[in-house]
Amino acid sequence: MIAEIITIGDEILIGQIVDTNSAYIAKELNKIGVSVHQITSIEDEKDHILESLKNASNTANVVIITGGLGPTNDDVTKRTLCEYFEDQLILNSDVLEHIEEIFKRIKHTPISNLNREQAMVPSKAAVLHNKYGTAPGLWFKKDEVVYIAMPGVPFEMKALMEIEVLPKLKKEFDRPFIHHKTIRTYGLGESAIALRLEEWERNLPHHIKLAYLPNFGMVRLRLSGKGYDEGELKTSIELEFEKIYPLLKDIIADTAGEDEELSLSLQNAFIDKKSTLAVAESCTGGLLAAEITSNAGSSQFFKGGMVSYATQVKEEVLKVSKATVKKYSVVSRQVAEEMAVSARQLFKSDYAISTTGNAGPEKGESDAEVGTVYIGIATPEKVYAEKFELGKRREQVVKKAVNKALEMIYKELVTR
Amino acid sequence: MIAEIITIGDEILIGQIVDTNSAYIAKELNKIGVSVHQITSIEDEKDHILESLKNASNTANVVIITGGLGPTNDDVTKRTLCEYFEDQLILNSDVLEHIEEIFKRIKHTPISNLNREQAMVPSKAAVLHNKYGTAPGLWFKKDEVVYIAMPGVPFEMKALMEIEVLPKLKKEFDRPFIHHKTIRTYGLGESAIALRLEEWERNLPHHIKLAYLPNFGMVRLRLSGKGYDEGELKTSIELEFEKIYPLLKDIIADTAGEDEELSLSLQNAFIDKKSTLAVAESCTGGLLAAEITSNAGSSQFFKGGMVSYATQVKEEVLKVSKATVKKYSVVSRQVAEEMAVSARQLFKSDYAISTTGNAGPEKGESDAEVGTVYIGIATPEKVYAEKFELGKRREQVVKKAVNKALEMIYKELVTR
Repeated sequence: MIAEIITIGDEILIGQIVDTNSAYIAKELNKIGVSVHQITSIEDEKDHILESLKNASNTANVVIITGGLGPTNDDVTKRTLCEYFEDQLILNSDVLEHIEEIFKRIKHTPISNLNREQAMVPSKAAVLHNKYGTAPGLWFKKDEVVYIAMPGVPFEMKALMEIEVLPKLKKEFDRPFIHHKTIRTYGLGESAIALRLEEWERNLPHHIKLAYLPNFGMVRLRLSGKGYDEGELKTSIELEFEKIYPLLKDIIADTAGEDEELSLSLQNAFIDKKSTLAVAESCTGGLLAAEITSNAGSSQFFKGGMVSYATQVKEEVLKVSKATVKKYSVVSRQVAEEMAVSARQLFKSDYAISTTGNAGPEKGESDAEVGTVYIGIATPEKVYAEKFELGKRREQVVKKAVNKALEMIYKELVTR
Repeated sequence: MIAEIITIGDEILIGQIVDTNSAYIAKELNKIGVSVHQITSIEDEKDHILESLKNASNTANVVIITGGLGPTNDDVTKRTLCEYFEDQLILNSDVLEHIEEIFKRIKHTPISNLNREQAMVPSKAAVLHNKYGTAPGLWFKKDEVVYIAMPGVPFEMKALMEIEVLPKLKKEFDRPFIHHKTIRTYGLGESAIALRLEEWERNLPHHIKLAYLPNFGMVRLRLSGKGYDEGELKTSIELEFEKIYPLLKDIIADTAGEDEELSLSLQNAFIDKKSTLAVAESCTGGLLAAEITSNAGSSQFFKGGMVSYATQVKEEVLKVSKATVKKYSVVSRQVAEEMAVSARQLFKSDYAISTTGNAGPEKGESDAEVGTVYIGIATPEKVYAEKFELGKRREQVVKKAVNKALEMIYKELVTR
């Protein structure tokens, strides 16, 4: 079963935004056994859209289109789809009701003709309910090819995929079962892991594949199998997992689903242990706290955090001793440890994490090299810090530091 | 002048990586007046590559190919290019020397036959020196179409673009000028703005386009024009801008370049005014501080932040009075104002921003509706807070709150 993804909109073609939608869609389609043959990005232009639809339909049996469904004039997708399917727009009263409800509830502004326009849908399309937005998804079928059009707004598109598109695709097509098992590792790079698995990988049965999913210093391994006998498939994947486990057990963080963020595993572990957490951040500038609070329910264990960006703040608010800063510099193991201890006291939490380092691009108040980061952990029993070299690019240093910090505290919590 | 970008490799099609290369290439091409007509991602497969090259050459006069140039067998691009151009591989001694030098200097390993393979290049190609890698870039010309192949490793590709490809393209083609003007608005949705601009947009000259770029509650408008007379082009865009300005002046945040994030405009404004900033965050959980510190140089004006997630922390650490919390609840204008004032004192900053609200999904300690957020601003002269309803989705509430907070402080700073 083959799909093509077509994203419509100039923003991608002028490099204003990176096309993350296609990556998400491709990933989700792969999970249900649909392989993506091509991803095509084109502008909001009728003839180009028509041509791309035609080309896609030559090889793909599923064509997924995102973007160009907005209310404004530069969005031509809907009218173009009508032309492609020799169809016309009709008013869909459910959609209109939904739009009016959204405007009443959230936007508190009267609905305009432009918004009302969005309730006009091609008569041949099945309407896919867009829970979070005013532009509905559209599902067409022509000559055994399914065409799905969704708005390009990422969270609207994702909800449409989850709630409408994926279930409908599963029903529509007879596909082999796909089963995944994901292992989250920490502390070892992709190639070092590959080296450990080299021999095992050589003997991997054809219907099972291993994917390395590195992400800012964390590597996830995904075992994926395809087969028509679901039970047999799952057994064979479990079997491979049992072979892999001893090879990696020292670096396995957990075997949560790949969609479970480490921050969520961490939250569950803290809530299980009825423990609380606080953070004191320097180089991560608040992103660590933001990551920890990104999941609903985080207030059950996260007390709060301090972003002590200026050294003066580290000393006066976070009570890191001037002497320590003077003696070891602000980017040092000692300061990281004092920050963690102070945060734990200040916020009255059971655990605390701290980060201090130089995210670059230039050397800061300390002479620490760009990319040098110390991460401290304070627990009811002890305090310690680790040093990391996280590269030269600011964004990367910060994100890797956040992941390392989450790893360290997660490890501390689950391996006690 | 029209370009197509073709990225080759399975990682993108299975959603394992996001295609950031194309965004970079598209942006750079746009800057020199080359518009990208299509971006196509395909797998490492000969026939598919040949077909894509043929299709691209029908409309584009520049075809840029990335990926598939590695030493391993699954990289077929080079052989496929030979077939497409009816060419064969010959040894390039300069490339071989470069590869040997890289291995001596960096990898400290003897060069393998696979690596030596990379010095074999199509005889009809001009070789583009890959400063950072072993796979050279390739430049072909056939029937007035230029084809450029580069490795997919981002930093190798970027260096090739800067040092080799862009200068060579500028020499090769006579191009129109491209000029953009971006307006950042706040507080009004895409369709409401479109309504205001409806009539003006109808009279927009053909060589100027307007794009709506919405992003979590902020809409950027981009005027783009193309023309051979640079002066005339800029004047005509300025002219349209002057027509647009009065229609939007109440909602224009600024007219910074489209690449400039609000956080950066804010940073520049603070540094100009030699003022400092601190934040006290509740529902934004650290993301506001993270956004403010996302630009290099933020330590010049950002003192620090407090994430007071637990009410106890608001009261004990941030010194918000228990009475205020009790009387008005933790999600209230009064608490937002006290948080801002306390943050300003605690961090000894000139300005402070605070956020308190309910990001959902459930009601928290207060009875505030999900999506209700108060944002407070404390300045040397005054303190005030505004109330917002930011929808029901946690991630969205948080991101919109961050944008609103940046807008409010930016407005406070520039309109004083």
